[in-house]
Amino acid sequence: MEKNRYPARDITGCRFSLSVMKDDYVKHIMQTINQVNTEAVWSGTDALSTTYRGRRIHVVDAMRAFFTHANDGKTHVTLEACFSKGCPCDTEADSYLAQDDTLRNPVRKHFDVQAKMAFYPLGILDYMDKIAHVVNLAHTHGLNPQPSHYATALSGDVQVLFDYFDTVLAYAESQIDHYVLQVTLSVNSPTK
Amino acid sequence: MEKNRYPARDITGCRFSLSVMKDDYVKHIMQTINQVNTEAVWSGTDALSTTYRGRRIHVVDAMRAFFTHANDGKTHVTLEACFSKGCPCDTEADSYLAQDDTLRNPVRKHFDVQAKMAFYPLGILDYMDKIAHVVNLAHTHGLNPQPSHYATALSGDVQVLFDYFDTVLAYAESQIDHYVLQVTLSVNSPTK
Repeated sequence: MEKNRYPARDITGCRFSLSVMKDDYVKHIMQTINQVNTEAVWSGTDALSTTYRGRRIHVVDAMRAFFTHANDGKTHVTLEACFSKGCPCDTEADSYLAQDDTLRNPVRKHFDVQAKMAFYPLGILDYMDKIAHVVNLAHTHGLNPQPSHYATALSGDVQVLFDYFDTVLAYAESQIDHYVLQVTLSVNSPTK
Repeated sequence: MEKNRYPARDITGCRFSLSVMKDDYVKHIMQTINQVNTEAVWSGTDALSTTYRGRRIHVVDAMRAFFTHANDGKTHVTLEACFSKGCPCDTEADSYLAQDDTLRNPVRKHFDVQAKMAFYPLGILDYMDKIAHVVNLAHTHGLNPQPSHYATALSGDVQVLFDYFDTVLAYAESQIDHYVLQVTLSVNSPTK
């Protein structure tokens, strides 16, 4: 029996780019990448971004670790990340679905994050209801969602934020065939 | 007669964030913002991003100028931008729709850009057909679209890229009530 071959519809992915606002940004990015345990996900990097693909819990775990390691407590960094699942043109390629539920990155530091998010359910007519539910989930997580043009602003602890992303993605995979959760996270910004 | 009050459905917007990979990033961002003539659009800035709202041609013109001014020819900068129109919860607030077609930023420098884009038509069932059309438009513009996970990679001259965005948004507003064009642009990256 061939292991780790799953239908494309089971693969959650996240394409992300880290921006580091300092001269020595390359070293900062490389150190961050190397601190993440990616053995439970597929990982690929191109000119603009890195992509993790696998089961939802492992993709969120790797992203949580990535952003936690990216914050050195002083440098202004932003993470733009696109979580997605269910594209009809997706393939089984470039994926690795670890069968166990053991999270590989038990890092749980706490710090405040400013964030924005937009949720796009695709191919359905009642998409505004699904978006409203996802915004309400931000309320119940205490992330103080604030409506804004083309996005919802969020603020709160980094661990709560990634718990929220996991909750949104779990809700989405139970309700919608194809969706995108687009987020931007920022720490140590001079703009409050 | 009150001027400049238009239905929300006529307002194109773009929410964007510039990342500047150097120590002196604040000055670079402020200089870029100040070089754009925004008299034909509404402009607002919050903790994470700036938003322009107005008629499509003026929003694209302001974004083209913004990114052109952001590139000093040596610093690695990235622009994350979300063009959108037609959200059912949009309002007439925070907009300014200049009635004339005179572009306020006739800057036409040329340089190569690496980019990615994702197009999300919302609330329709045949969304994959619309996405395919938008990818084909990148072919006809000579932007060498390359399929990738969760995005399409593009590369080419900055002016062609913004001409393409304008073409996509013109197509979208003729076909779809609510849509999002999410793009990332990069220059002077050490990664080729």
